[in-house]
Amino acid sequence: MTAPGAPASGEDSLIACYFKPLATDPGAFGLNDDAAVLKSLGEDIVVTTDALVEGVHFLADDPPHTIAQKALRVNLSDLAAKGATPAGFVLSLALRKVDEAWLAAFAQGLGADASEFNCPLLGGDTVLTPGPLMLSITAFGRVAPDKMIHRSGAKPGDHVVVTGTIGDAALGLDILKRGRVAAALAGDAASRDMLVDRYRVPQPRNAIASAVGAHAHAAMDVSDGLAGDLAKLCLASGVSAVIDLKSIPLSRPVSAALAAGAVSMAEIISGGDDYEILCAIPQGALDEFIRVAQTARVAVSPIGTVIAGDSPPKWLDAAGKELPLTRTSYSHF
Amino acid sequence: MTAPGAPASGEDSLIACYFKPLATDPGAFGLNDDAAVLKSLGEDIVVTTDALVEGVHFLADDPPHTIAQKALRVNLSDLAAKGATPAGFVLSLALRKVDEAWLAAFAQGLGADASEFNCPLLGGDTVLTPGPLMLSITAFGRVAPDKMIHRSGAKPGDHVVVTGTIGDAALGLDILKRGRVAAALAGDAASRDMLVDRYRVPQPRNAIASAVGAHAHAAMDVSDGLAGDLAKLCLASGVSAVIDLKSIPLSRPVSAALAAGAVSMAEIISGGDDYEILCAIPQGALDEFIRVAQTARVAVSPIGTVIAGDSPPKWLDAAGKELPLTRTSYSHF
Repeated sequence: MTAPGAPASGEDSLIACYFKPLATDPGAFGLNDDAAVLKSLGEDIVVTTDALVEGVHFLADDPPHTIAQKALRVNLSDLAAKGATPAGFVLSLALRKVDEAWLAAFAQGLGADASEFNCPLLGGDTVLTPGPLMLSITAFGRVAPDKMIHRSGAKPGDHVVVTGTIGDAALGLDILKRGRVAAALAGDAASRDMLVDRYRVPQPRNAIASAVGAHAHAAMDVSDGLAGDLAKLCLASGVSAVIDLKSIPLSRPVSAALAAGAVSMAEIISGGDDYEILCAIPQGALDEFIRVAQTARVAVSPIGTVIAGDSPPKWLDAAGKELPLTRTSYSHF
Repeated sequence: MTAPGAPASGEDSLIACYFKPLATDPGAFGLNDDAAVLKSLGEDIVVTTDALVEGVHFLADDPPHTIAQKALRVNLSDLAAKGATPAGFVLSLALRKVDEAWLAAFAQGLGADASEFNCPLLGGDTVLTPGPLMLSITAFGRVAPDKMIHRSGAKPGDHVVVTGTIGDAALGLDILKRGRVAAALAGDAASRDMLVDRYRVPQPRNAIASAVGAHAHAAMDVSDGLAGDLAKLCLASGVSAVIDLKSIPLSRPVSAALAAGAVSMAEIISGGDDYEILCAIPQGALDEFIRVAQTARVAVSPIGTVIAGDSPPKWLDAAGKELPLTRTSYSHF
């Protein structure tokens, strides 16, 4: 692999074998340099970073290609929520050992997603660790100058809108940990598989990033639980919100687990790892936002309304009764 | 710390307390959003990333402020070698536990360097890990379009030039591990302290980044050992080099350890963690490069000449005899 005179570094060989094929952008310089270049014609470069630790953000026996996909997709999800177009990413990878089969599958998953989301690998660092596997990805996107969508900006009267379905991933994790949901869905392998897949492989909503950029007053991705993340968005915007619990989009398996009493609505809206977009869409723009999302085949659901005030968002059931929340977010701390 | 309705997340509190004061750039949005913005007026954004693992890249009992400094400075060193002006950085921090005193010292060190090098914190992610402490920093710099200095580009006849002194950090690590150098310098606490400090707190040469950008045909920072890194630069440039061992700049403590037989010249030039700039300066530009470096108070030493060919660089002693190298780099793999 290395030419005469080249150092026979294990890291260099690994990079050449597994990661160089992913470095398709000219700014990556084939991973042969110490740095990459992001070109700009004056657009703003949006930067986001997320770290994943084995046993904390994914499970040790998760398939390596899904670990790679999750690491990239949680960052892509942030870019989508900010209205940004993916431009590339860098990867820090701390490996416990050099397992070629694991690395090959990891790189395959990473490359497939880099290609699907048009977000090439620009560079990175690979190190050995005596501890758990850890990945940190910093991803880049582009927006027109000053057009990044913020958490702040939601205004009273805006619709609170969420993409996809809520709670799937949290229930998927419960299944992997053989919890109550696993028992409730014991006879339904397809549902269990769907929920586990939603935990392992988020579906970032980059297909509607431009619509978010065009229409949303405020947006963020739902990563730590819908309830907590809406509270963060409201706090940043200096507003409150009223949410209609029955409008919250649930997948069939989550509805089944809810009906079976294996999970509560409070748990569904405070679970983590949804990686859906939560946004505030002004009244007059909702129809157009929904139309564009439908064209992009992304489900979007209005779930409530932004109101003035600084109280926590209210989560109301069909009878107008407020759901008490003892915790609103998943936190590892 | 959090307003009514805000989630009382431990991570949010940590960030607000320790890291928000460092986020002085308007593009960091006070760390209150999901992403940061790097502005560009059309310059290229240079991106580099380096990860540090406790017990691998620093020692568990290293002072927290020096761990922070090292993590940032190894990235700043890459920017300097690429001729880029620092623009900011993002930090992924995986903590074993929340130790407020440790975090306060860590943030103090990070903030001091962010300020000194004009490289503000733009964002990050803080997670808990059951394993060793790990940090990954992705740093950004700016260069005029297509003006990043590459590893490739060295031409026969160029001077091989290195900044600072070589081997200090590798000997500092040996001292921390109570090796032969510690014994040889047992009576010289000042020298031991100087070498340990060079291991813990690299001195990135950002003060001469613009001179590197203006004059160097090729450059990289010396992180894995001068011998191996020169081999990489030569390989990328399709050239070879002849180095005069007695021209390699050594600090007084390293010269003393060498004279005492505690370390060999081969070990000095294949040790890691120097974080000096290695560059190829064309003949006609050397005087000006040295003049500018002197003004910036950065020592630069011509140590040899780039030659045609693809053989490994030759390291010649005063008698013109080649130094045999069994390994050229420090590699954790």
